[in-house]
Amino acid sequence: MVHSGTIRLRTNGHCDVIDITGRLSEQIRASGIRNGTVTIFAVGSTAAIGTIEFESGLTADFKTVWDRLIPKGIVYQHDQAWGDGNGHSHLRASMLGPSLTIPIIDGRMTLGTWQQVMYVDFDNRPRSREAVVQILGE
Amino acid sequence: MVHSGTIRLRTNGHCDVIDITGRLSEQIRASGIRNGTVTIFAVGSTAAIGTIEFESGLTADFKTVWDRLIPKGIVYQHDQAWGDGNGHSHLRASMLGPSLTIPIIDGRMTLGTWQQVMYVDFDNRPRSREAVVQILGE
Amino acid sequence: MVHSGTIRLRTNGHCDVIDITGRLSEQIRASGIRNGTVTIFAVGSTAAIGTIEFESGLTADFKTVWDRLIPKGIVYQHDQAWGDGNGHSHLRASMLGPSLTIPIIDGRMTLGTWQQVMYVDFDNRPRSREAVVQILGE
Repeated sequence: MVHSGTIRLRTNGHCDVIDITGRLSEQIRASGIRNGTVTIFAVGSTAAIGTIEFESGLTADFKTVWDRLIPKGIVYQHDQAWGDGNGHSHLRASMLGPSLTIPIIDGRMTLGTWQQVMYVDFDNRPRSREAVVQILGE
Repeated sequence: MVHSGTIRLRTNGHCDVIDITGRLSEQIRASGIRNGTVTIFAVGSTAAIGTIEFESGLTADFKTVWDRLIPKGIVYQHDQAWGDGNGHSHLRASMLGPSLTIPIIDGRMTLGTWQQVMYVDFDNRPRSREAVVQILGE
Repeated sequence: MVHSGTIRLRTNGHCDVIDITGRLSEQIRASGIRNGTVTIFAVGSTAAIGTIEFESGLTADFKTVWDRLIPKGIVYQHDQAWGDGNGHSHLRASMLGPSLTIPIIDGRMTLGTWQQVMYVDFDNRPRSREAVVQILGE
């Protein structure tokens, strides 16, 4: 059995981290699928999906790490060719990755108590976004 | 068909890398599923799943890379708020990611000869852990 | 329903980024599966799978980032033990990850317009490679 859904988001960009765990849980409940997997996929090349303990200290640290590892404001060939100044956004999104698959057992994702699903918008401006939710199982 | 399992582990933390390939193979064999996928998911926000050529030189290098890219001992807002000193553990786990999906063909994972599945505990103390194994297929 | 396929590649190594989106789309079309997921898996421990806006500026930036974060030419214990000089290749591959799962809806992957699937060969020499394509759905 396959159940498809969508999560629509308005983001602020600049490593905006959004907790989508609740909306995922609702879609899983609505699907009626009790055992299987859910795949969450960020449509677009400057956003990504992951898990984190969603608390404000850690989401700030998360942004700081990316600012250090893949800074904005240095030379990227992408920016020189396209002029949109978001080369760092693309590289961060590629490295974190657009896709996450989580087991569903007895109707629930097998997340830890302090483990939430995050949508991360690395782009350099606010955007309207879409994540695809694909639930497989029985 | 869906088959659910669990791998229980005792880890040392501090980027402890544990080869779980054999235990996964056993669960796949026991499931009777010959073609499909297996998803391995690390429950908790300071552990992660990946693949590596599992040999002691490389697992030491892996630890060194994380110590350089996301060091412990620098200021993290998570640590200032919560005082458990494992901000670096959370950030490393988020970056490597908690989930891995591998194709199963003819009853076996399609791993390379020198490619093993690793459970990585980034936390800063020994822990009892659980990874969920979800096998989908026919 | 499960459909298994293979993508064979000849690569140049050294962070060679290859767009495999078209070949994936063909396999999905041939499978007849309209709704489900596709998992793409890089066999071997020095290659990885991801998404990127596939344009030459960004693939060059991608290589530059890895050269900075996990450089070749520094000491890796893997190289000292095995002498093949590709410790950096292994570590990059482990960090990016060998597996990607993408939803399929109405017969198509839910990629963004400027989001392509890339096979990345991080090894330090040209190689013949194989990626496994596993399609689950109905």
